Amino acid sequence: MDEFGIIQKYFAPLAKGYKGALGLKDDAAIYTPTIGKELILTKDAIAQGTHFFGNEKPEQIAHKLVAINVSDLAAMGATPKAYLIAMILPKSTDEQWIAGFTEGLRSATEKFGGHIIGGDTVAHDGKMSFSLTAIGEVPSGKAIKKSGARQGDKIYVSGTIGDSYLGLQILSKKLDIKSSYLKNRYLMPEPKIKLSIKLQGVASSCTDISDGLVADLKHICGTSGVGAVINTDNIPLSEDAVKSGVSIEKLITGGDDYELIFTIPPEIKAPKGAFYIGDITKNKDVLFLDSNSRPIKTAKEGYNHFS
Amino acid sequence: MDEFGIIQKYFAPLAKGYKGALGLKDDAAIYTPTIGKELILTKDAIAQGTHFFGNEKPEQIAHKLVAINVSDLAAMGATPKAYLIAMILPKSTDEQWIAGFTEGLRSATEKFGGHIIGGDTVAHDGKMSFSLTAIGEVPSGKAIKKSGARQGDKIYVSGTIGDSYLGLQILSKKLDIKSSYLKNRYLMPEPKIKLSIKLQGVASSCTDISDGLVADLKHICGTSGVGAVINTDNIPLSEDAVKSGVSIEKLITGGDDYELIFTIPPEIKAPKGAFYIGDITKNKDVLFLDSNSRPIKTAKEGYNHFS
Repeated sequence: MDEFGIIQKYFAPLAKGYKGALGLKDDAAIYTPTIGKELILTKDAIAQGTHFFGNEKPEQIAHKLVAINVSDLAAMGATPKAYLIAMILPKSTDEQWIAGFTEGLRSATEKFGGHIIGGDTVAHDGKMSFSLTAIGEVPSGKAIKKSGARQGDKIYVSGTIGDSYLGLQILSKKLDIKSSYLKNRYLMPEPKIKLSIKLQGVASSCTDISDGLVADLKHICGTSGVGAVINTDNIPLSEDAVKSGVSIEKLITGGDDYELIFTIPPEIKAPKGAFYIGDITKNKDVLFLDSNSRPIKTAKEGYNHFS
Repeated sequence: MDEFGIIQKYFAPLAKGYKGALGLKDDAAIYTPTIGKELILTKDAIAQGTHFFGNEKPEQIAHKLVAINVSDLAAMGATPKAYLIAMILPKSTDEQWIAGFTEGLRSATEKFGGHIIGGDTVAHDGKMSFSLTAIGEVPSGKAIKKSGARQGDKIYVSGTIGDSYLGLQILSKKLDIKSSYLKNRYLMPEPKIKLSIKLQGVASSCTDISDGLVADLKHICGTSGVGAVINTDNIPLSEDAVKSGVSIEKLITGGDDYELIFTIPPEIKAPKGAFYIGDITKNKDVLFLDSNSRPIKTAKEGYNHFS
């Protein structure tokens, strides 16, 4: 089956609910913005061997691709509307794989909202990689930025930290425990879009935790020109993470959580699903305190390409 | 230098003119649509070994990536506004290469219009590949689609056909002639954005020639439910293409021209820079006639992945 056949058989059905996608038969898609809204645009790429193994189910790879991009929209408080995909595939890719991948795209976009409205497919001699452009909408002026944290704001996370890191350790055979929960947290992340909508006009800053809690909190503090003190005893951990016996330093630097970390001024009540972990300070240090209020030293501060 | 260092040193300057890019420090960019305009969204990917050799200057690869995406915007009559880039690079990529690539992005986006407002960089064990999402604007309802060609419309192209195909043949050492003009047409395509703006409200259909004149005219005819008769003597050829002695069949099926092919109702005057090549017919055949009005047979009908 040729490229146009694949587009019409597997991708066009995903675009069906979006008139401006023009059935994926045109050079580009037409997007009609909603009056009173601004668009939020993000684009994350994943490559075999770096972000995924390649032997996962194609449905899982597709889910993760959509989820990590939707997580960036959630970080800004935006509602997912549309996606454009680029697939770089080995020439040997068979139709069954593509069928599974597009089924994963269908199920993820149905779950999180929005339609595939365009993209490109390339067959080459090499490994798989993918990028997705996600387009969301927020009421004009309501996008939540990293830069809005102020002294005295309370710091929250949206769920348990370190599960995805542990899942990756299990899948890489570096950690010998059984937990399909932890593996699933790595393979099938769930962006916090419902909570993120409640943060509009509530959170002073927000980002999603992809590089690790420590690194992403430092991004908030760096762009906001503030510091933070975190009581690590407050950081929510799953039962399986506690049982694993892995140190808190590793859990908060591991990355790939796709939870939200956000700040809320002290006079505003946090929505349900927000876990208080510490406070924004004027002093620009970002400190993680143990049970005895002593700062923890973290050697690795999140994942960084080219480092 | 780490990923964040590269973003701030090389990519942030490209985003400087666009406030919503937030200095590339946030999770996503904020795009404020112009009132009365619709957005045109496209995303094309290029991979080493498939769309480029890899030993080109990084500036040239960047130029081509921007140009082929802008060409898709031009095909719809849209003005370029913003771009998001994904770069999948070998781990061995050095800073000098990235400096050259971003210089190519700067020069192309300055030339064609619009700003880089986001993206992602991945280092992996493998070859280079890139995707670009291009965002353009058209007055609402004015996007030119492939599907609008009607019986009696005249068919035009925006420039000489087959030059890029010949350039690729020279660069691949399959054609032994000297022509920096032809090589340049392959390496540094120039999307026809100025002409495309003049086609708003004038052309009944349009697409850019990336898969070859034959294949792309068939896309117009297929989506419009019409046919075409082309007099191949009318197809504009460069002096170097004529001198090459390569057959017209190869020139019109080679692809990568990034010229526009469009249709205009007979009562409307074509703008300057439009070359008349034939007519839209009710009969759904797409015929290319030689000097004796005999149909030419074209074996290969444009480039197709997975075929």
